[in-house]
Amino acid sequence: MTLNDATPDFVACLEAQLPEKTIGNASSAYLEEPRGRYFGQGGVLARPRSAEEVSTIVKACNSAHVAVVPYGGGTGLVGAQVMPGDVRPVILSLERMNTIRAVYPLENVLVAEAGCVLAEVQSAAQESDRLFPLSLGAEGSARIGGNLSTNAGGVNVLRYGNARDLCLGLEAVLPNGEIWHGLTRLRKDNTGYDLRNLMVGAEGTLGIITAAALKLYPRPRSIGTAVMVVSNPQSALELLAMSREIAGESVSAFELLHGQGMRFVQETLPDVRLPFTDIPEWSVLVELGMAQAADAALEEIFGAAVEMGLVSDGVIARSDAQRQALWSLREHIPVANKAIGSVASHDISLPLGAVPAFISEAGAKVAQLGPYRINCFGHLGDGNLHYNIFPPKGETREAYDTQRHQVSDLIYELVHGFGGSFSAEHGVGRMKVAALQKYADPARLAAMKSIKAALDPNGIMNPGAVL
Amino acid sequence: MTLNDATPDFVACLEAQLPEKTIGNASSAYLEEPRGRYFGQGGVLARPRSAEEVSTIVKACNSAHVAVVPYGGGTGLVGAQVMPGDVRPVILSLERMNTIRAVYPLENVLVAEAGCVLAEVQSAAQESDRLFPLSLGAEGSARIGGNLSTNAGGVNVLRYGNARDLCLGLEAVLPNGEIWHGLTRLRKDNTGYDLRNLMVGAEGTLGIITAAALKLYPRPRSIGTAVMVVSNPQSALELLAMSREIAGESVSAFELLHGQGMRFVQETLPDVRLPFTDIPEWSVLVELGMAQAADAALEEIFGAAVEMGLVSDGVIARSDAQRQALWSLREHIPVANKAIGSVASHDISLPLGAVPAFISEAGAKVAQLGPYRINCFGHLGDGNLHYNIFPPKGETREAYDTQRHQVSDLIYELVHGFGGSFSAEHGVGRMKVAALQKYADPARLAAMKSIKAALDPNGIMNPGAVL
Repeated sequence: MTLNDATPDFVACLEAQLPEKTIGNASSAYLEEPRGRYFGQGGVLARPRSAEEVSTIVKACNSAHVAVVPYGGGTGLVGAQVMPGDVRPVILSLERMNTIRAVYPLENVLVAEAGCVLAEVQSAAQESDRLFPLSLGAEGSARIGGNLSTNAGGVNVLRYGNARDLCLGLEAVLPNGEIWHGLTRLRKDNTGYDLRNLMVGAEGTLGIITAAALKLYPRPRSIGTAVMVVSNPQSALELLAMSREIAGESVSAFELLHGQGMRFVQETLPDVRLPFTDIPEWSVLVELGMAQAADAALEEIFGAAVEMGLVSDGVIARSDAQRQALWSLREHIPVANKAIGSVASHDISLPLGAVPAFISEAGAKVAQLGPYRINCFGHLGDGNLHYNIFPPKGETREAYDTQRHQVSDLIYELVHGFGGSFSAEHGVGRMKVAALQKYADPARLAAMKSIKAALDPNGIMNPGAVL
Repeated sequence: MTLNDATPDFVACLEAQLPEKTIGNASSAYLEEPRGRYFGQGGVLARPRSAEEVSTIVKACNSAHVAVVPYGGGTGLVGAQVMPGDVRPVILSLERMNTIRAVYPLENVLVAEAGCVLAEVQSAAQESDRLFPLSLGAEGSARIGGNLSTNAGGVNVLRYGNARDLCLGLEAVLPNGEIWHGLTRLRKDNTGYDLRNLMVGAEGTLGIITAAALKLYPRPRSIGTAVMVVSNPQSALELLAMSREIAGESVSAFELLHGQGMRFVQETLPDVRLPFTDIPEWSVLVELGMAQAADAALEEIFGAAVEMGLVSDGVIARSDAQRQALWSLREHIPVANKAIGSVASHDISLPLGAVPAFISEAGAKVAQLGPYRINCFGHLGDGNLHYNIFPPKGETREAYDTQRHQVSDLIYELVHGFGGSFSAEHGVGRMKVAALQKYADPARLAAMKSIKAALDPNGIMNPGAVL
């Protein structure tokens, strides 16, 4: 498929169909991404206010074979939001579609436009004494449409699922410009193919999400948070199983922490308080959310774990401030990583039972490649590790940049061998297109290509992403 | 698309590629369905033992343009398992693919072949001290592949979700005969389009599920069950909200019962014990599953509900036998319905907040059509009602059969007006194809047709179902 530039004539024609100032030029902010790996050469910026305006824009693009790059908060980590190359696309930002359309506390449903910032959705839920549980580092700027398009994860997936699991219905503009009015608030609706889940996670290649009906939950009244020291990842897994035996679905976060991450924080962020004087090699942050007495359940878990020899030390937060301090440590680990500068980062997932063997084998194999430092941390409850590799102390990532692909290939091969995934929560974007081609099941990949061709025959939607 | 008969030559060619006795003739058991509305004229029965054999069969059918009708337990309620008409299809039964391939208790995952009976999957989970929460009336004969293909619901959806939500990965044969090896046990895997959820709920029209990786849960140690009398559906909804405030996700079932259903049970099944001497017009069966003290939580809910005037009477089960007696009442309501004989049955869902207004308006409108008896019951926690309409006492359904479509049209129009669905958990099958054409969003319906044409260009997979 050959795509055409969004020419001045095309733009003039588009402007004539839309309210004033809907169309403009894309500033550099729309042409960069956080990893600093992809850059757009320019483009037309469209900032529609309604699904109807999105439809007008997409219809025009489809008919003129002009590329459309959907743009949410710009926080994606795999380059799905920036299209490099010489062809001038329409960058369609959802930022003006930022209304919470309705909250239904009795139904535990909230309807938000795609441009709502995630933190605003959380706040709107809280104002109705409800919880919208999607929570991740970029929540202050990520927009819910992007969260859905990338099927975002974060720290509460163990209990509440990914963005996919929190979505009941969608309003979306398909690649032919037609509006799908699918903002259902139904919990059950078995009437044909699941278009909702096809749009969620498609990273803007099958259409543009313009609004979503989202699931809310009762707010747990009692929250208990602790960091517990474990001797190794296997003990951490056994602690997870025991925690769920005792507290069931109340286990809402179970985050693996590694000594290397704490040392990075100590080195680069001296104001962040560490819970232990001697940095432990492995520890986990556990959080329970219950109707009442979460601390008592946490004490029970801690006591039983010590007795079974799974846990050697721990800190249970005794106040909101202490709870926030424990989370602050967890949340500053990526900040410290960035300050140190990784040679290669990996957002991988594994069958839960394979995590200990993977960590052990990967460590040994990376050591053979060079004197790297490894920070392996993340959402252990979901089998999702952020496996990041850093240069030796005193050296810079640049010195090791030539080895980046070799390191990543090693990790991805190992992950694949264990039945894991090369992208747990970040998506494919443009960064992992080659990995998808390499590791995806061939029958599934062929089906994906058929679906893309069927729904977007002109290939206008976010070309170069995913496929 | 013209489809061809499975001719003797075709069968001979197929037999040559498969082990002996894989192919035979379909007995009448494979040509009927529980509603008694659809009948097959005959067909070739294929009973493969592996995904490879399924692949061989589907490839042959695809190349010869012979229809394939996937067959699980045959318990579906919308006719998806039986193809009427003169063309002789291959009926592909999964009954021999009935192995539990593996259980991973630490990971809370079980891998089952599609032909496993649902109750066997539940038992295998229980043997590992885990819960597979999908539970429905036909669990003794329904097979898990069919449960997934129809995205089955049942009594635990409120807490654990539909079949869709319980599935981590699939092995499936696509319409071109290629095997998709997607039996992942991963909780997070953001690597492209969600083919899994496209296959789930497609009712065998996009391929054949041959095995699934399923989610298990810790078994709640303490289960509390009660039936509480409420003054009306609105009170029932408020009771639901309050129960979830107190017990969070522990509320695992919340079933609406109607006096008419209890009277039907009294009339047709005198051995089933009713919990109240005076049959209440509205009541709910509430179940909590907790780590401990579920009865105490249930007492707390009951006490608070009485104080707020939501509940006027109730029975809390004090033993396993009492608990089973309460469930037995709930489970015998469909049996009693069948004995009475409905004029029209509806498996509908509504936004939770719209349930009271719907029940009130529907009752008034049905009364205008005739002196019908209405039994409105079901999974209120999910907004899913079974809204069944019966002839007046002493008369037979046959006398009212001419009004069946008029009654259903009235109900579906009303449901649609409230933003509800004409099929909450049973699917579309062949029975609701016209309703789908009438009520589905046009953009979505067009996308569904594109996807069907892209993945099954010869239209061999379960023709006449869904689309």
